[in-house]
Amino acid sequence: MENKRVPVELDAEAALGLLEGAEFGRIAFIADGIPTIRPLNHVLLDSRIVLFTRHTSALGRAVRRQADLQVTYQADRIEPRTRLGWSVLVTGTAADISREPHAAQIGLQVESWMKHPLDMVIAIEPHKVTGLRLAAGSGGSR
Amino acid sequence: MENKRVPVELDAEAALGLLEGAEFGRIAFIADGIPTIRPLNHVLLDSRIVLFTRHTSALGRAVRRQADLQVTYQADRIEPRTRLGWSVLVTGTAADISREPHAAQIGLQVESWMKHPLDMVIAIEPHKVTGLRLAAGSGGSR
Repeated sequence: MENKRVPVELDAEAALGLLEGAEFGRIAFIADGIPTIRPLNHVLLDSRIVLFTRHTSALGRAVRRQADLQVTYQADRIEPRTRLGWSVLVTGTAADISREPHAAQIGLQVESWMKHPLDMVIAIEPHKVTGLRLAAGSGGSR
Repeated sequence: MENKRVPVELDAEAALGLLEGAEFGRIAFIADGIPTIRPLNHVLLDSRIVLFTRHTSALGRAVRRQADLQVTYQADRIEPRTRLGWSVLVTGTAADISREPHAAQIGLQVESWMKHPLDMVIAIEPHKVTGLRLAAGSGGSR
């Protein structure tokens, strides 16, 4: 089935709403000069994207090495058959919030991918939020 | 249902096999000093990951600006309910192969996300391929 998809731009509020409902996303950051991606679970809290990781992970080390590390967080939900769905991109800075009050409890809200014990809570402060919804085209007129 | 997942490392061949069967992935690269992610469709051809984009896209501009651009390509297939599945990471370099013989035909094998006409074929030469399969745990013994 030839199904032309029409990309519809989302405003930041709609994009963050989709992100909030998503199972997980992927963070891009620079480690030793190389752009790196890691899949992670997240929760949204007061407009921050909160991640739970280990301080020895590649992300943990990068965040400890540099205050307000530049990152991009991405999530999508694309239905494999129709290829319809959405994609959200957030650029911002990531910081270690493990010492904030209640950080441990906040971290526990983030479901872990792995069995490894996690010990580092990271918050991404969004600077720019963009999103696209891939909607079914109506035959090519739009 | 509490379902502890066991991460099982994949060898490069198995990881590339999963990538080959995947619908799409995400590329991370550095643009203007900022780590960036873009979702894309891909095909595997002679162990290279081939992408089709526009020369004016953020990725297209980054690849034109720098020969052998450092990138990471990532794909995953995680079943939302059980959270079981796999994730593959490829680090390598990306180059514009639009002028290679047959590049246009190769590009057309890559299904497009969008209706926009595409004019740039990019190949990622993998340097390191890693993958994890998230298998169902058998109660915590492994």
